[in-house]
Amino acid sequence: MTTLENYTLGRWTPGESAPQELLDASTGEVIALANTEGFDYEAIFHYARTVGNPALRRMTFHERGRMLKALALHLMEKKEQFYALSVRTGATRADSWVDIEGGIGNLFANASLRRKFPDKPFYVEGEPVGLSKGGTFMAQHLMVPREGVAVHINAYNFPVWGMLEKVAVNLLAGMPAVVKPAVPSAYLTEAVVREIIASGILPAGALQLVVGSGQGILDHVNYQDVVTFTGSAATGRKLRAHPRIVEEAVPFTMEADSLNAAVLGLDAKPGTPEFDLFVKEVRKEMTGKCGQKCTAIRRILVPESLIDDVQLALGKLLGQTTIGHPLAEGVRMGALAGVEQRQRLREQVRQLAQNTPIVYGDLDGGAEVLGQDRGAHFEKGAFFSPILLRNDQPFRHLDSHELEAFGPVATLMPYKDTDEAIRLVNMGKGSLVCSLATNDPRMAQDFVLGAATHHGRILIINEEMAKESTGHGSPLPLLIHGGPGRAGGGQEMGGMRGVEHFMQRVALQGSPTMITAITEVYQPKAKQIEKDKHPFQHYFEELEIGQTYTTHKHTVTEADISAFAQVSGDNFYAHVDETSLEGTLFTGRVAHGYYILSKAAGMFVDPRKGPVLLNYGLDECRFTKPVYPGTTISVTLTVKEKIGQEKRDADDVAKGIVRWYVEVTDQTQETVAVATILTMVRKKNQE
Amino acid sequence: MTTLENYTLGRWTPGESAPQELLDASTGEVIALANTEGFDYEAIFHYARTVGNPALRRMTFHERGRMLKALALHLMEKKEQFYALSVRTGATRADSWVDIEGGIGNLFANASLRRKFPDKPFYVEGEPVGLSKGGTFMAQHLMVPREGVAVHINAYNFPVWGMLEKVAVNLLAGMPAVVKPAVPSAYLTEAVVREIIASGILPAGALQLVVGSGQGILDHVNYQDVVTFTGSAATGRKLRAHPRIVEEAVPFTMEADSLNAAVLGLDAKPGTPEFDLFVKEVRKEMTGKCGQKCTAIRRILVPESLIDDVQLALGKLLGQTTIGHPLAEGVRMGALAGVEQRQRLREQVRQLAQNTPIVYGDLDGGAEVLGQDRGAHFEKGAFFSPILLRNDQPFRHLDSHELEAFGPVATLMPYKDTDEAIRLVNMGKGSLVCSLATNDPRMAQDFVLGAATHHGRILIINEEMAKESTGHGSPLPLLIHGGPGRAGGGQEMGGMRGVEHFMQRVALQGSPTMITAITEVYQPKAKQIEKDKHPFQHYFEELEIGQTYTTHKHTVTEADISAFAQVSGDNFYAHVDETSLEGTLFTGRVAHGYYILSKAAGMFVDPRKGPVLLNYGLDECRFTKPVYPGTTISVTLTVKEKIGQEKRDADDVAKGIVRWYVEVTDQTQETVAVATILTMVRKKNQE
Repeated sequence: MTTLENYTLGRWTPGESAPQELLDASTGEVIALANTEGFDYEAIFHYARTVGNPALRRMTFHERGRMLKALALHLMEKKEQFYALSVRTGATRADSWVDIEGGIGNLFANASLRRKFPDKPFYVEGEPVGLSKGGTFMAQHLMVPREGVAVHINAYNFPVWGMLEKVAVNLLAGMPAVVKPAVPSAYLTEAVVREIIASGILPAGALQLVVGSGQGILDHVNYQDVVTFTGSAATGRKLRAHPRIVEEAVPFTMEADSLNAAVLGLDAKPGTPEFDLFVKEVRKEMTGKCGQKCTAIRRILVPESLIDDVQLALGKLLGQTTIGHPLAEGVRMGALAGVEQRQRLREQVRQLAQNTPIVYGDLDGGAEVLGQDRGAHFEKGAFFSPILLRNDQPFRHLDSHELEAFGPVATLMPYKDTDEAIRLVNMGKGSLVCSLATNDPRMAQDFVLGAATHHGRILIINEEMAKESTGHGSPLPLLIHGGPGRAGGGQEMGGMRGVEHFMQRVALQGSPTMITAITEVYQPKAKQIEKDKHPFQHYFEELEIGQTYTTHKHTVTEADISAFAQVSGDNFYAHVDETSLEGTLFTGRVAHGYYILSKAAGMFVDPRKGPVLLNYGLDECRFTKPVYPGTTISVTLTVKEKIGQEKRDADDVAKGIVRWYVEVTDQTQETVAVATILTMVRKKNQE
Repeated sequence: MTTLENYTLGRWTPGESAPQELLDASTGEVIALANTEGFDYEAIFHYARTVGNPALRRMTFHERGRMLKALALHLMEKKEQFYALSVRTGATRADSWVDIEGGIGNLFANASLRRKFPDKPFYVEGEPVGLSKGGTFMAQHLMVPREGVAVHINAYNFPVWGMLEKVAVNLLAGMPAVVKPAVPSAYLTEAVVREIIASGILPAGALQLVVGSGQGILDHVNYQDVVTFTGSAATGRKLRAHPRIVEEAVPFTMEADSLNAAVLGLDAKPGTPEFDLFVKEVRKEMTGKCGQKCTAIRRILVPESLIDDVQLALGKLLGQTTIGHPLAEGVRMGALAGVEQRQRLREQVRQLAQNTPIVYGDLDGGAEVLGQDRGAHFEKGAFFSPILLRNDQPFRHLDSHELEAFGPVATLMPYKDTDEAIRLVNMGKGSLVCSLATNDPRMAQDFVLGAATHHGRILIINEEMAKESTGHGSPLPLLIHGGPGRAGGGQEMGGMRGVEHFMQRVALQGSPTMITAITEVYQPKAKQIEKDKHPFQHYFEELEIGQTYTTHKHTVTEADISAFAQVSGDNFYAHVDETSLEGTLFTGRVAHGYYILSKAAGMFVDPRKGPVLLNYGLDECRFTKPVYPGTTISVTLTVKEKIGQEKRDADDVAKGIVRWYVEVTDQTQETVAVATILTMVRKKNQE
C-alpha cells in the first residue's frame, strides 16, 4: 500500500502519525495511506520565507509568467496520469477535465497575464497623484510581493484546480506557497505536485505540500503571510478567528460553499431558447461533479406560472442522467467523494424534505448504477440519485436558502416579479454565483443591480452567448471568484486583481525626479535628460527614463488647417467655417486636434532609419487648449517607460516597447496637448 | 452642565446611563457629560439600512459628490466654532487645522472624485474580459454599493478628521454610516454632526452618531455592513475576532498606531539640505498634536557616524518647543488628551528608558508651561515634555521597535548601511508610514523596494519637494492610509481605492449585447443601432449606447501618404523611403498611423454645425495592422459611453461627454485601427 508523502524543506517524506485510509469513491477500495499529523509548520514556513520567497520576489513578472507557462506545458504532457487517478475520486472524464485542464488553464492564463505587468519584480499601480500646485511634490502607488508565504487550505472536491488556481496567482505575484489539500483526494494533489517538483521548473522553496489534517497550521503564520481557505463555512469561521490571524492581521481569504441560484426570466417561456438553455444549465450544474461544486445550483427560481413546466422538463432531463462508475460507457454522473459524504448528504436532504417535498429522485437508492454489479457496489460506492425538491412557499420555508446539501440536490421555487426574484436570491445571504436566463435587457439590468450586492458572479444566459458560454459553474481565471457573507466574503483570481492579494501596496511620496528614479516610470515635471543624439537613434537598451528631445518650433497657419482638412477630409465646421462659431467654445477657426498630434509627430520624429521600428498606438491623448492660427507650438518627447519584449522565435527581432510622454506647448508655455505614444524599438543585442 | 446627545433614528437624544465627565486637556475643567451605555444598535442599524442606504444607493456618484461638496462648504463656514472647541482637547491652532480643515478637505477631495465615476449609482470596473473566440461571450466587473451600514469606531486624537475621512468615502460610495467617536473628545465630533444634520444636506439615515462606550456595537452587524476601527491594536484585535464579524464575513478595516520610522540617508550629512529637513520633520512629527498621531515618528534611524550630530541638532530644536495652553502666545505644543493618557505615557516611557536612556527631556515635569499659573495647572493639565531616547544597540534592545509611547516621544538609533536601515525599519512589524531623507536616487530605490512590504506609505524627503511637501504625518485623501501587521493590515482612503471598501464587486458574464445593456457601456461585438440621422446631429440626450455610423470607404494611395507626410512633416523612413525597408517589419511604404486616425475622422465626422462641440482627446488607440497603398478602409463610429456634465454656472452650455468607439477595417474585414475618442456634445435641454 502506498503511503502519501509530503514535500517540505526540499524533500519528500511520509508523515509520522497513525495512517489514514484513502478510499476509491466508486468501489470503496483503499488507494493509499496518509499520515496526517506531526508537521513542523514553523520549519516549513521558515523555509518558504527564507528560501522560496527571496528567489521568487527577485524574479520579474515576465520571468514568473514564463515559469508558469513552462509548468503548464509540462503538466499538460502528464495529464493522462492525472485523469487515471481522478477516476478514483468518482469523477467522470468531463468532471476531471474541469479539475485537471481547468487547473492547468489557470497556469496558462496567469502566464499570459505577465504582459499586463512590467518586466520588473514590482509594479506601479494606478495613476500618479499630484499633491502640490507647483508640481514638485507628488505620489504614486507601488506594489511589491509580500515577504511571507501563501498558505492554501483546500477542499476535497477539486484536488488539482483547487491548488493550481491559487498557486498560479501567488507565484505570479512573487510569493511561495504551502498547500494543504483535503485528505480524501490528496493522492491526486500529491501526484501533480510530484510532477511539478520533478520538472525542476520552480525554484527551491516555491511550493511545499502537506497532506495533513491541518492541525496547528496557523500557529506560525505572520503578518507577511496570506492564508486562503476553501471549504465549509464552519471550518472557515474557526480559521478566520484564529489568534494568529487576528493578532498579526494576516490577510485571510475564504471561499465557502453557498446556496447559488439560477433564475428563469419572466420572458423565458417554454418554447423560447432561454427556457431550454435554462433547464439544461440547471441539469448540468446539479449533476456535474455529482453536485459537489461550491458553485453548483442549489436554488431554482422560476416565474410562478412556469413552475410545473420547469419541473416537468427538468425531471425529464434528470431522468436521462445515467449514474455509475466513471469509466463505464454512457455514464454521465459518477460517485460522491465517499460514503461519509453520502451519509451527510442523506441527512441534509431529509431535513430539507421536512417542509419541501422531493419531486424527483429517491433518497434510498433506486437510481440505475452502471458499470458494476449493482447490489454489491451500491453499498461500497458513494452513488447518489439527483434530487429535486419543491418549495412553493419560499418566503416561509427558509431551509431552502440556508441549508446546503452538498451533492446533486436542488430546490425549485416560484417567484412573482423581478423584485421578488431579487429578494429570494439574496436570501442566500451571499453566494458565489447566480444565473439568470433572459433575453430581456430591462429585466437583466434590474436583476443585476439588485442582486449584485449578494453575488460574486452573475451569468446572463441567452441565445446569443449560448454556444460559447462557459456556464454557471465555472470560475474563470480573469474573473473574481468569491462572494459576500455566506460565500466567505473573499475574492480570488480576477486577473490582475488576484495578484494584489499577495502583494503589499505602498503610497510613495516625493519629488517627481525621485519618484521617477524609484518607479522607473517618467513622471511629468521630473528632471529631463537631454542628450546629443536624437532618442530615435538610440537602441532600446540605451534609452534612459526621462531622456528628452525638445523640437524646433512651428507657427500654425490657416494654410496648415486647410491643408489638413484636405488630406484628412475632416471639414468639421469649427476648423473650416469661420461663420459658424457663434455659440461655440471657439473664438476663431481652430486647428484639428489630430493636426496638432500629427504635426507634433512630424516635429519629434527623426526620419532617418534607426532603431525605432514602428508606432503602434497612443494612450491618453488630451487637447487641452484650442490652437488658432498664429500659435507657435513646440514639442518635448520624453522616455516614459520601457518594457522588454520576448522574442517569439529565434528569427524574431529583439525589441522592446517604449512609451513616450509627448507634450505640446504654445508660445506662452501653456500645454495645448499631451499624449503617451507607443513605439517598438530594436535592441542593440539581438541574441 | 451640557450632556452630549446622540443622533439616532432621526433625532437627538441623550443616552441613558450614568454620566461620564469629559475634561479640558489643559485645565482639567469639566466640559460636558456623556451617557455612554444603553443604545439599541439593532434599531440604529436597521434605520441606516432601511432609510439611509436606499436613499444613498439610489443617488448617482455625481449627486453624492455634489452633496459632499455642499457639506464641505457648509462646515467651512462654521469652522471657527470647531476651532474654539478643539482648544479644549489640548490642540494648538496648527493641530486643530489638521483635524478640522484636514477633515473638511477630505470631503472636498471625495467630492471632486465624483468626476472619475459615471453619473450613475454603480460603476464599471476594469477592462472588459473576452471569454470566447467568436466574441459572443464576455465579462465585465461591476461595482454596486453594499446594502448595509458603515460602522466607524474612531480614536480620540482626531475627533473631526477621524470621522470625516471615513464618512466622505462611504457617502461617495452610497452607504450610510454610524459613527462612534472615542468619548474623551466626543464633544467636538458631536458639534460637527450637529452642523451636518442642521444643514439638511444629507438624506435621512445617512449619518448617525453614538457617543458611547461601544459596548455591544458589533452584536448586530451583518454581511452587508462594513466595520472600520481606528485605535489601539489591542482593542482592534478584540473587535476583529468578534463572533459577528467572523460569522458574517463582515469586511473589517483596522488602522492602528504603529512605530513609524524616519531614516536619515547615508548621503544626508550635516550641511546638506536633507539633514536640516530631516531634523525639522522629526521635531514636527514628535511634537505636533503633542505626539498623539498614529503616524507620528517613534523611531529615528541615522547613519552611525551621524548619530551625535542628529542628537545635538534635534535637541536644540526640541528645546525651542514652547509648551503651554493652546491659546497662550508663542505656544508650539499643547497638552495630551488628558491626565489619564499622561499617566499611561509616563509608564511607557519608563519602560522604554530601562535599556535606552533618555537623552532629551524630563519625565517628571521641568518643561516650561506657558499661559497659566504653572504650579497649579501642571497637575490638572496634561502637559508633557518631549522625550528623546537613544538606543545604540537597536538589534538587541527591541522595546524601541515594539513598545509605543503615544506622545511626544521617539528613540534615536544608528544603522550601518541601507540593508541595515531596511531591517531596522521593518522590525516595527508593519507601520503606517516611514520617511527617508535622501537625495540619492539609488539609496531611495533600494530602500523603498526593501521597506515597502512593511509600510503603507513612504515619503522621500529632499530639497526638491521640501517647499510643497505635506510631510510625514499627513495621510492624504487620494493616497491609501493603513499598513500591514501591527498597523492593522487595513487600507483606507486612496481615492477610488477607498470607495471599493464600501461596494460589492460582481463579475458579470453574458453576451456583448446584454452586457452593454446592463453596464450602459458599449462592448465591442454588441449589436449596433443604425439610425437615419448622423450621430453628430443628435443631442446628448438623444444618443443611444450602441448607436453606430458606418462610413463610406476610401482606398489609401501613395499620394495620400505623401500628402500626409507633407502636411505633418512626418517623414519617418517607413512612410516615405521605399529603399529603407530591409530588416523592418514592413513590406512596402506604410501609411502613417496618424494618417489612418485623421482620415478615419475625416470619414466619420459630419462637418455640418450640430450638437457636437469639440473633440478633446482620445484613449487607447492601437494600429493593429499595417496599411499599404491599395488598402480600402471603412470606419464605424459607435456611442460607447455617455457622461453628463455639470454646468459651471448659469451661462455655461449644458453638455455631456460622449466616448465613441472607432474601428477602422480593411477590405478583408480585418481591423487596422481602433480608438476611443472623446467629444463634448450639447444637450437639447439647456436649462
